[in-house]
Amino acid sequence: MALIVHKYGGTSMGSTERIRNVARRVAKWHKAGHQMVVVPSAMSGETNRLLALAKELQPAQLGKAYGRELDMLAATGEQASSALLAIALQAEGIDAVSYAGWQVPIKTNDAYTKARIESIDDVRVRADLAAGKVVIVTGFQGVDPDGNITTLGRGGSDTSAVAVAAAMKAAECLIYTDVDGVYTTDPRVVPEARRLERVSFEEMLEMASMGSKVLQIRSVEFAGKYKVPLRVLSSFTPWDIDLNEEASSGTLITFEEDEDMERAVVSGIAFNRDEAKVSVLGVPDKPGIAYQILGAVAEANVEVDVIIQNLSKDGKTDFSFTVHRNDFQKTLDLLKGKVLPALGAADVVGDNRICKVSIVGIGMRSHVGVASRMFKCLSDEGINIQMISTSEIKTSVVIDEKYMELAVRALHREFDLDQTADTISK
Amino acid sequence: MALIVHKYGGTSMGSTERIRNVARRVAKWHKAGHQMVVVPSAMSGETNRLLALAKELQPAQLGKAYGRELDMLAATGEQASSALLAIALQAEGIDAVSYAGWQVPIKTNDAYTKARIESIDDVRVRADLAAGKVVIVTGFQGVDPDGNITTLGRGGSDTSAVAVAAAMKAAECLIYTDVDGVYTTDPRVVPEARRLERVSFEEMLEMASMGSKVLQIRSVEFAGKYKVPLRVLSSFTPWDIDLNEEASSGTLITFEEDEDMERAVVSGIAFNRDEAKVSVLGVPDKPGIAYQILGAVAEANVEVDVIIQNLSKDGKTDFSFTVHRNDFQKTLDLLKGKVLPALGAADVVGDNRICKVSIVGIGMRSHVGVASRMFKCLSDEGINIQMISTSEIKTSVVIDEKYMELAVRALHREFDLDQTADTISK
Repeated sequence: MALIVHKYGGTSMGSTERIRNVARRVAKWHKAGHQMVVVPSAMSGETNRLLALAKELQPAQLGKAYGRELDMLAATGEQASSALLAIALQAEGIDAVSYAGWQVPIKTNDAYTKARIESIDDVRVRADLAAGKVVIVTGFQGVDPDGNITTLGRGGSDTSAVAVAAAMKAAECLIYTDVDGVYTTDPRVVPEARRLERVSFEEMLEMASMGSKVLQIRSVEFAGKYKVPLRVLSSFTPWDIDLNEEASSGTLITFEEDEDMERAVVSGIAFNRDEAKVSVLGVPDKPGIAYQILGAVAEANVEVDVIIQNLSKDGKTDFSFTVHRNDFQKTLDLLKGKVLPALGAADVVGDNRICKVSIVGIGMRSHVGVASRMFKCLSDEGINIQMISTSEIKTSVVIDEKYMELAVRALHREFDLDQTADTISK
Repeated sequence: MALIVHKYGGTSMGSTERIRNVARRVAKWHKAGHQMVVVPSAMSGETNRLLALAKELQPAQLGKAYGRELDMLAATGEQASSALLAIALQAEGIDAVSYAGWQVPIKTNDAYTKARIESIDDVRVRADLAAGKVVIVTGFQGVDPDGNITTLGRGGSDTSAVAVAAAMKAAECLIYTDVDGVYTTDPRVVPEARRLERVSFEEMLEMASMGSKVLQIRSVEFAGKYKVPLRVLSSFTPWDIDLNEEASSGTLITFEEDEDMERAVVSGIAFNRDEAKVSVLGVPDKPGIAYQILGAVAEANVEVDVIIQNLSKDGKTDFSFTVHRNDFQKTLDLLKGKVLPALGAADVVGDNRICKVSIVGIGMRSHVGVASRMFKCLSDEGINIQMISTSEIKTSVVIDEKYMELAVRALHREFDLDQTADTISK
C-alpha cells in the first residue's frame, strides 16, 4: 500500500493492444491497494511524425517563437496517449483521469524544446488519488510562467515521471521500457553482458551520459537530487505476472551506499562512437589559450567533451578535445578560419574515426590502480590510447573506433563482469 | 484595415503543402493591413483517426469520465494543426502565435463532446494583434470551469470561429471551405444549381438544419445572435488572387434585410434522406396523447422532427412523426412494447424509405400561395405528399425517397432558381 509512479515509453504505448496491456498492468497494481500515478510517452513514432511536419514548414530563422510552436505541436502526442490510457483503464473498470502538464500544473521555465521543471503542484493529483482514482500525467511537457506549453526535450517523459514521483514523495518510480534493466555493457557488443540488480545513482549517471541509453540523464540527475528510488524494468513481461516478482525485477537505482556496494570495482563499460577529435598543434604556451580556443567553440554552440592539454615543449603545446561528430567539420572550419591565425598556432588537425570507452564503478573510489589495470588490458590487446580522461568513478579513453568492440569485450572480461549475476551482486 | 477572422476546414489544412497555402493567403491579408485571427480545423482525417483509437479501447459504460478523455484526445488534432499553421506563417516572415482553447481562454460548460461556449476572453489575443502578430486560435475546443478540456462537437470549428469573431467584434468572419459558397440546392442533384451571392441569416439557418452541410448550424445561430457578418468561400482559389476579388467571392450571410432581399420568393431547396416516419394508428382522441407518445420517445433520447396529428374521426386519430433513420427501429420497438398498450391504440407502423424536401426563402413571408405552388408542382410530377410542415420561411414535405431527385429538380425549376445568378441576385 504505497504511492507508486509508473512510466511507460513510446514502444510500450505503441498500439491500442499495448495500451490495453499497460492498463491491465496498472489495474493490477491499483487493485493490490497501491495509489497509482502513470506517466506515458507518446505512441512510438508520433513525436517524430509531428516534428517531421514542422520541419517541412519551418522558417529560415529558428527563433523562440518557432520553439514555442514546436512545443505546442509536440505536446499533443503525450496528451493523446494519456487520454487513451485513461480510456483503457476505464474499460478495466478503474476510475481514471488524465492531465496535461498545464493542468497539474507542471511549471517549467520558458526554454522551449528543452525546458526545465521548476515546480509541480500535487494538490489536484493527490485529491484524485484520495478519491480512489488512477491519475495519468502527460510526460515530456509543462507550462511556462506565461501559460505557454513547453516540452522537456527528448526522453523528457523519464524526467516528468521522476519529477512527479519526487513531488508526490512516491515510494518508488518504475520506468517500464523495452529493455529489462541496466546491463554491464551493451549485450549486442558483449553477449556475456549481464543485468545489474542494483546500480548506484552516480554510476547510472556516468552510464547514461556515456551512451547507455536506458534512461535520460536528466531524469537520473533529478532522481539523485530528490532521492527518488528508481527502477528500470521491462514492459514486455506478461501483464498478469505476480506483482511481487514484477516489483523486484529489472535494475534498482539506489542512493544508499549499502555494504553490497563494495561488491565490484567496476560496474559497467560504457562506450560512444558519436565523437570526433580535434587538435590544435604548436600553440604558443601562454595564459589564456584554452579560453581562446574553447571560447570560440562554445560561442558556435558546439559542446566539448574530453579536453587535453599536452606538456609544453620549446614554448609550444598541443591542445586536443572531442566534439560531437555532427559538429566536427564546423569546428575544424571555425578553428582554421579565425582561431589559428589569432593564436599563431601551427596547424589544426582532426579525426572523426574515434570512439570513447569508459569503465564506471563506485568501487573505483576506494580501489587504487583501477585505471592502470584498464590501460594494461588495452595495451595487451595492442590498442593505442589517444586521450585519457578521469573522474572519481569513471575512466575514459579515446581510441581508434575500429577497436571499439575489441576494447569493450576485453575490459568486460578484465573486470570480471562476464560472471553470472548471482556471484557478483545479491 | 479591419479585424478579420478566417476559418479553414480540415481539407484546407490537409497537408503541409495546403497549410503553406493557407499561410500565404493569411499573410496576404495581414500585409494588406488587416488584423488577422485564424481558426483552423484539424488536418483532415485526424479527428477520425483519434476517435477510432478511442473506440478500440472504450469501456462498456460510456459515462462522463469517458467523455472527458475523448475531448482530451480529440482536442489534440486542432492544437497540432494550429501550431503547424503558426510555423508556416513564421516561414512567410509573419510573427504568429497559436493558442489552444484553454489559453485564450474559450470558456465552455462541461458537456463533454458537445460543450457550449460561455465566454471568450479577448485580452491576450487583442494584445498580440496590437503587437502586429497573426493569432491562431484552435477551433473545436474550450475549457470548462474546472480546467478540463472540452470540445464543441463535430463541425465545432465553425462555431469557434464565429464566437471568436463575435468576441473580437470582427468586421467579418470568412469560412474557407472546399465549396465556393452556398447553392440554391446540391449541384450533384441539380446541375443547374447556382451559388447565392447573399443569403439571409434565417434562410441559412433553415438550409443548414435541412442538410446543406456547408456550415454547422450552431455557428449560424451564433452568428445570428451576435450579428457577425459571415462569408463562406473556397480555400481552393490560388492564394495570390486579388484580395478584393477574394473578399467579395463566395456567399455572404447577412443580417440586414436590405431591399435586395425582395429579389426571390424562394432562395433554395434543401433535402434530407436521413429520416424515417413512424405512425401510431387508431389512437383514442383525448387530451395528453401527444405527450404520452412523444414523452416516451424523448426519454429514449430520440429527436423528433416533423409531427402531424390527423383530424379525429369516430373518436380516433392517427399520430405521425419523423425521427433520424438510425433511431427508427428503436422507436418502433419502444412504441410497440410500452406505449401502444398503454394508449389503447390500434397499431404502430413505420417507413424508413422516405425523404424530406423543403423550399426555403425569406420572401415567403410576404408572398402568399408559395406553399400551394410547391404542392401543385409536386402533384404535376405525380409525387404523393405524405406529410407537410411549415414555418414562416420554409415549407417541408415528406415524400417517398425514390422521388427525391425528381422533386428537388422540379422545385428548383418551378421557383426560377435555374436562371443565371445575375438576373436573380445582385
